Amino acid sequence: MNKMSREKQDFKVIGTRVKRPDGIDKVTGRAQYGADLVVPGMLTGAVLRSPHAHAKINAIDTSEAMALPGVKAIVTNADFAALDDEFLLDVADNCLAREKALYHGHAVAAVAAKDAQTAKAALKLIKVDYTPLPHVTDVDDAMESDAPVVQAGRKQENVKGDYSDNVTMYCEFGHGDLDAGFAKADHVIERSFKTAATHQGYIEPHACLASMTSDGKADLWCCTQGQYFVRTLCAGILGMEASQLRVTASEIGGGFGGKTTCFIEPVALALSRKAGRPVKLVMTRDEVFRATGPTVSSSSDVKIGMTKDGRITAAYAALRYQGGAFPCETVAMGAQSAFAAYDLDAVKTEGWNALTNRPKEAAYRAPGAPMAVYAVESVVDELTQHFGLDPLDVRLKNAADAGTLSSYGPTFEAIGLVATLEAAQKHPHYSAPLGENQGRGVSCGFWFNFGGNTCVSLNINDDGTVGITEGNPDIGGSRASISMMAAEELGIPYEQVRTIVADTSSLGYNDVTDGSRVTFAVGLATIEAARDAIKKMCSRVAKIWEIDPDAVIWENGQAKPSGPNAGDFEPMSLAEIAALSSETGGPIAGHYEVNADGAGVSFGVHLADVEVDPETGATKVLRYTAFQDAGKAVHPDYVEGQMQGGSAQGIGWALNEEYIYDDDGMLLNAGFLDYRVPVASDLPSIEPVILEIPNPGHPYGVRGVGETSIVPPLAALSNAVSRAAGVRLHELPMSPPKILKAITSKG
Amino acid sequence: MNKMSREKQDFKVIGTRVKRPDGIDKVTGRAQYGADLVVPGMLTGAVLRSPHAHAKINAIDTSEAMALPGVKAIVTNADFAALDDEFLLDVADNCLAREKALYHGHAVAAVAAKDAQTAKAALKLIKVDYTPLPHVTDVDDAMESDAPVVQAGRKQENVKGDYSDNVTMYCEFGHGDLDAGFAKADHVIERSFKTAATHQGYIEPHACLASMTSDGKADLWCCTQGQYFVRTLCAGILGMEASQLRVTASEIGGGFGGKTTCFIEPVALALSRKAGRPVKLVMTRDEVFRATGPTVSSSSDVKIGMTKDGRITAAYAALRYQGGAFPCETVAMGAQSAFAAYDLDAVKTEGWNALTNRPKEAAYRAPGAPMAVYAVESVVDELTQHFGLDPLDVRLKNAADAGTLSSYGPTFEAIGLVATLEAAQKHPHYSAPLGENQGRGVSCGFWFNFGGNTCVSLNINDDGTVGITEGNPDIGGSRASISMMAAEELGIPYEQVRTIVADTSSLGYNDVTDGSRVTFAVGLATIEAARDAIKKMCSRVAKIWEIDPDAVIWENGQAKPSGPNAGDFEPMSLAEIAALSSETGGPIAGHYEVNADGAGVSFGVHLADVEVDPETGATKVLRYTAFQDAGKAVHPDYVEGQMQGGSAQGIGWALNEEYIYDDDGMLLNAGFLDYRVPVASDLPSIEPVILEIPNPGHPYGVRGVGETSIVPPLAALSNAVSRAAGVRLHELPMSPPKILKAITSKG
Repeated sequence: MNKMSREKQDFKVIGTRVKRPDGIDKVTGRAQYGADLVVPGMLTGAVLRSPHAHAKINAIDTSEAMALPGVKAIVTNADFAALDDEFLLDVADNCLAREKALYHGHAVAAVAAKDAQTAKAALKLIKVDYTPLPHVTDVDDAMESDAPVVQAGRKQENVKGDYSDNVTMYCEFGHGDLDAGFAKADHVIERSFKTAATHQGYIEPHACLASMTSDGKADLWCCTQGQYFVRTLCAGILGMEASQLRVTASEIGGGFGGKTTCFIEPVALALSRKAGRPVKLVMTRDEVFRATGPTVSSSSDVKIGMTKDGRITAAYAALRYQGGAFPCETVAMGAQSAFAAYDLDAVKTEGWNALTNRPKEAAYRAPGAPMAVYAVESVVDELTQHFGLDPLDVRLKNAADAGTLSSYGPTFEAIGLVATLEAAQKHPHYSAPLGENQGRGVSCGFWFNFGGNTCVSLNINDDGTVGITEGNPDIGGSRASISMMAAEELGIPYEQVRTIVADTSSLGYNDVTDGSRVTFAVGLATIEAARDAIKKMCSRVAKIWEIDPDAVIWENGQAKPSGPNAGDFEPMSLAEIAALSSETGGPIAGHYEVNADGAGVSFGVHLADVEVDPETGATKVLRYTAFQDAGKAVHPDYVEGQMQGGSAQGIGWALNEEYIYDDDGMLLNAGFLDYRVPVASDLPSIEPVILEIPNPGHPYGVRGVGETSIVPPLAALSNAVSRAAGVRLHELPMSPPKILKAITSKG
Repeated sequence: MNKMSREKQDFKVIGTRVKRPDGIDKVTGRAQYGADLVVPGMLTGAVLRSPHAHAKINAIDTSEAMALPGVKAIVTNADFAALDDEFLLDVADNCLAREKALYHGHAVAAVAAKDAQTAKAALKLIKVDYTPLPHVTDVDDAMESDAPVVQAGRKQENVKGDYSDNVTMYCEFGHGDLDAGFAKADHVIERSFKTAATHQGYIEPHACLASMTSDGKADLWCCTQGQYFVRTLCAGILGMEASQLRVTASEIGGGFGGKTTCFIEPVALALSRKAGRPVKLVMTRDEVFRATGPTVSSSSDVKIGMTKDGRITAAYAALRYQGGAFPCETVAMGAQSAFAAYDLDAVKTEGWNALTNRPKEAAYRAPGAPMAVYAVESVVDELTQHFGLDPLDVRLKNAADAGTLSSYGPTFEAIGLVATLEAAQKHPHYSAPLGENQGRGVSCGFWFNFGGNTCVSLNINDDGTVGITEGNPDIGGSRASISMMAAEELGIPYEQVRTIVADTSSLGYNDVTDGSRVTFAVGLATIEAARDAIKKMCSRVAKIWEIDPDAVIWENGQAKPSGPNAGDFEPMSLAEIAALSSETGGPIAGHYEVNADGAGVSFGVHLADVEVDPETGATKVLRYTAFQDAGKAVHPDYVEGQMQGGSAQGIGWALNEEYIYDDDGMLLNAGFLDYRVPVASDLPSIEPVILEIPNPGHPYGVRGVGETSIVPPLAALSNAVSRAAGVRLHELPMSPPKILKAITSKG
């Protein structure tokens, strides 16, 4: 793809706060989520899960369950295709355990029956012969050379250090001479940190409806962030061709990265294939916690040297992530994100991933970045305190900018970090007074933002309205922003455009809705598709006017004669051209397919004021302001919503959320009562401040905005709590007992 | 569009009998028809219909019905938008009567309620104050100057003759000097004919599910031959923009033209808008007969002059059609079809349409043509008998061919009539002996075939399989034939292609599935879309090989280097190119939008042997052979099925089917018990004989095949019965009482 430049600034639609297209449907219950589709003859599925954290599966006897009247099919891993591809095999083995149950709650078998009661009764009749095995759930424990091995043979060859076979991956990034850098420092601080695994906490549990015929064609309706990737996974696991599987994404009740892979979809398809009937499979909340993908938990060491005037001379981080029972590479994104906000002469990050007896991690908003940045920003804050410097001054002094050789390799183009830091510094929040037991924390945050494979078709309806087909589930307002970009480009009102999310048989392949890629990449493809349609419209008008197509230009939603023909004809509106399309050659459409690059990285700076109760260790968030570079904010409401939502999730991660395992490897808090996400009363009104530093890789300057906002809160809260409590914490979540213990230890 | 020439003959997929893609779904009940969709909160709709053939509606009192618990909405015509467009207004007024009820069964109001019982109870509580008016149901009666006027002010200005205001249309076609022609004849025969209105008899009644939100967006699921046209009609009638209405066509249980317009869809949308809930509306069989669109009934006069050696010297037809209570132009197609099979020096057809108090006609397989051709072919047969000539010899002597100035204006390109007549003459059927009371009838038939607005998108999946999106409901195997054409063009197996029918928001506008247009026009667009994809694939490969894109050619599903680069690289298969698409620029798709012309007319010749029981007047069809030019038969099974199906429907029309009205204008036989379509035991195995005279307007030579086959049976049967019974009949259907009466009258 050719690099694009931002070509216009006189926006008419972009930047306005138009009405969201899905609002009424969602508040009236008309929107159809994963569990809402009903078809004739449908069976109900249910999944049997391992009661052990780690166990060999010797045998599964389904005979008694199959004999129960109303039971139509039972599947195990043996019902999946034989797979060579290691990645697909891992997904399949996570959906239904193969030789071993690898974590508490790991699916072992599934039933399809005439109703839920029968399915549940059948689960109790399935006899699984297990041999329990030693288990490990902590990342540091798992890396010890004598740790129980979760899956043998998965260690990467290049792993540095004397670790167990659980360590599947090692990576390193950086540049410059660390030793020389640390030698130049006036002070060096080295600290170790731990963060707990957290869950995305989407309100809608995973749900799907699968229907396969005996000739191998199938339809799958499911709640997902990526119907095409679901197709790839399911087709692979079921041994089907992609053309034979049509996947439709339902409306989605939250995903945040957690719905970018498959847990139940291949199981439902296998059940449908075996039963010859449609099968609906819906997870309970308990199953969502136990057997979908939370984040990694982490253990890390960060060492930073600084001069007394606040210049960082060298920086090092060692990151150890566990992502559950299957290999994951999230630590690489953590290692790349850790120091991305800084312009450094000497920097190095190393990352290790370890297997544990926990559910396989899934993406969660800026996956891998929050825990890495938390550790780094904590040490930067402590150094700032050590020298008595202003935290924002220090970050400005070291801030990455256009031309900076980033800590992970690429040289940055135009980025908004400095502007964002300056905006924070100037904001009244930063100079507001603090009271007793109160503290203010600052943190930077970073996310790469993705581009990727994208297809858009734009159809000019015969009444001059426009329909857009795109292939990414709308998790943050993308239908609105895509319609807005089309309206802007075509020069028609937003209300005349309707964007729908295509199923996999209606449009070419689209990468998953992840990496904050959609508004950027689908937007870019939409603008190009609109330009394709405009070109065709101009050519139709040229035919009507009998002039050269190049002599027709597009302005404000109209085709106009130009050059030697300027003024020869009355301009024709899009609606007029559409009405004549049948006579001028047929329907008019614009199309664009691309693997988009140039997404443009994003930075945020968060300010958090907290008050810590020294008697209980409870933290109250008093004020919270999030600054972020959106490139160009297509629909500011949605951008602000993303900033507020990410902040809220980060605050929960910092203060309360965690996966709690007992000594037997059992998850103790698989529900929203015990896994406590922040509710409205826990939070102040989070103030979002949008900066707009155009991304040169997008025609309108757009950057992804969805993920950066979850990165700063962990350190912003930790820095605020540390300053409020007068003692620095090195572990998340900072739940009251931990804060109380730190205060008490300090004495 | 540039005229295309048939470019290849060495077909690999075209012409084979591959497995149909919808077979398993249809026989296992997995296919979802119009009434099969279920959504949460759905209401049930029911329609109140006029008990009068013609009545003024003074007032509709819905208060008592609305008060019934469980009733959520009641609509009348007043709930539709105020309409300027006469065509839309007619459709709206047919869906719900405005000032007058125009026929027995005309919809007057509709209810949405929590269940069917409540809806039906509510219908009884709606009070309609009618003033009954005089009515007319027969076409000749309706044209009388003193006939009751069905709708005032609809008479066309150019109507020739002293007729009532019911005559809405007049048309004429032809060329040459009729008087001089008749003067040259050795014998002239002039006869009058009548045909009854018949119904398409599709097994699936009309059904839809409408859901509209309070912000005016709506989804409509319905059983239709044209979801885009449904969108146009419904959006117009409801006052919506096209972009706000997404129409999805269900699987269809027969249409034959009868599902090319709207009867209940705008009503369901209006109910949903008023109730704020989804509304399902399903017709009963009784409603289908009374209030959907049967054919016109006709009255006609045909006069033909012939020399003793069988040359037609002049031909004239006057056609009078009634198409129910709203204007229709079907008679124009009858007037154009009447003499299309003949190469004539002097020919003229005139057509009149009259309003009656009957349901508005809808298309039925070659609409307008069967009754016109029936009259013409009857007179040709009588002349043949008069001179003792061979019926096929006479038709061959007068047959239209390439270069013929047709009776309706255009000059024919390559057509297959002569080949078809010759094939019939050589077929063993034509020389098989006949027994006592047996007769053999011959008739030609003709249909224009349509092209029209068409969009196709073709997506290359990442595993090398292919998905095609087209916008025409599959009523005769089009998904298979479209997949076959794509497979042929791309050089991959048929099984790797899956074609789906898009909803209106997923693809640009497509004309209705009618006029036998789909295999031609969508096929043409599919081939062009495949060529677009091939061009892009070659360009990707050129990028990989670093050679000029023009130096890459496509052969047998592979990209190959050519010219100076020939042999420099190993060919790359479609699957290999697809697997690399992400690295070479993104997903690969081909698109094509066109208003297709060049459909190529189609001719058929049918042979029918019957035995007439002189004691009962009952006719038994002994043997039936249908010869037809398919251009190129893409999937011969489907072509044969169309030929057999059209023949069977034509036989029913000839022998039994008719709308029977009593003196009060009430339809007496609104059900399959009294409206008797042929069942398997009524018919011999119909033998289809496919001829292949390539259509120069299609890359593979394809012509439409769906409609021509219903045109010849009416005359073929009438001619056979006339020869068997020794007395000529001039009215359809030739039910036993009519035949007995004719035999008795002859004495």
